Amino acid sequence: MAQRPKTRDRIVLESLALFNTQGERNVTTNHIAAHLGMSPGNLYYHFRNKQEIIAELFALYEARVDSFLRLPEGREVTVEDKTFYLESLLAAMWDFRFLHRDLEHLLESDTELAARYRLFAQRCLDHAQAIYRGFVSAGIMLMNAAQVEALTLNSWIIVTSWVRFLCTTRGEGADISQDLLRRGIYQVLALEGGYLAPEVRPAVKELYEKLYVPLDQVVPN
Amino acid sequence: MAQRPKTRDRIVLESLALFNTQGERNVTTNHIAAHLGMSPGNLYYHFRNKQEIIAELFALYEARVDSFLRLPEGREVTVEDKTFYLESLLAAMWDFRFLHRDLEHLLESDTELAARYRLFAQRCLDHAQAIYRGFVSAGIMLMNAAQVEALTLNSWIIVTSWVRFLCTTRGEGADISQDLLRRGIYQVLALEGGYLAPEVRPAVKELYEKLYVPLDQVVPN
Repeated sequence: MAQRPKTRDRIVLESLALFNTQGERNVTTNHIAAHLGMSPGNLYYHFRNKQEIIAELFALYEARVDSFLRLPEGREVTVEDKTFYLESLLAAMWDFRFLHRDLEHLLESDTELAARYRLFAQRCLDHAQAIYRGFVSAGIMLMNAAQVEALTLNSWIIVTSWVRFLCTTRGEGADISQDLLRRGIYQVLALEGGYLAPEVRPAVKELYEKLYVPLDQVVPN
Repeated sequence: MAQRPKTRDRIVLESLALFNTQGERNVTTNHIAAHLGMSPGNLYYHFRNKQEIIAELFALYEARVDSFLRLPEGREVTVEDKTFYLESLLAAMWDFRFLHRDLEHLLESDTELAARYRLFAQRCLDHAQAIYRGFVSAGIMLMNAAQVEALTLNSWIIVTSWVRFLCTTRGEGADISQDLLRRGIYQVLALEGGYLAPEVRPAVKELYEKLYVPLDQVVPN
């Protein structure tokens, strides 16, 4: 029989759900307690304030990204790994979409989180660059070192800016659907378009088709 | 003899300078008036509030971008045009850097500006796409229609997210130098890396070298 989740975990999961659907700024610790049918006092016993809940959610996000954003051990990367990386990224973005929407605001109000984010960003850039280099070594992509560096940075910016781009172009209250995020992942894949080795293009084309969402669904005219 | 700028223009220019150097959020209309050695009353005679000054600055920015982000008339685009577009973009980003840093905050607090921004974004995407198509027609770039569309969107996101990327990775109070913006423009050019026709690569390589700023100056380790 499944064990009932501990109170602390229930608070974290409910907060994540509320932040994702209603936006972090619109959710107070009182809302969270009410949704869990617990007293604010009980919530404060576990977390002193919303900032502490956010820090815990960020740690979960960080662990999640660290778990997949790495080269496979003991073998070369393959075209199938590309699908794995992009789908893992899409799932992480979706599950923690409030972080992508409210990041700047969150970092401004918590200098410790901001410092932690900077280390996380640096680590992601290092790992992503190692992965792109792996695709070059495996003959899947054709790039020189400067191109790998620029591509890595562009990928990072597209991934971390996509949700905000959706908000500024669609209006602040815009709902973020999984389809809209999928187009963001398509954009990341599109960054590599010119660097694919001819023999892998058919396989990657399938991936493009799987991720494609028409632009007029993203930027309404 | 040069005519002394009108009071209204002096307010606009001084506001732009203060917003750029100190951040829009840290500058009040009282600061602006004090810097111009005028009474707040005199400033309010010209602008009812800071929002009106920002709207006027946004209109100037919009006019500036609209003036260069278009295909040349009556001739094909050339590789030299690529330099022109990127340098114009760099100059506009520099001159109006507060807009890039504080955009989301500005749009949140002014729904009229947000609606105007959305039209501007759509227009920029349309024109940028036409320009990339022009480079394809001129044989300078080799892309299919889907690649042009994805590249256009990625360029827009890199341009509009670059300053914010600098702030989140370098810390909020980070000074934005012209060198740091130059690396952003390099990143935009890098998006095209895989799509250049072989015969234009030497010319574009020069442009890369001109725009290059080492990554460790951008993301301090």
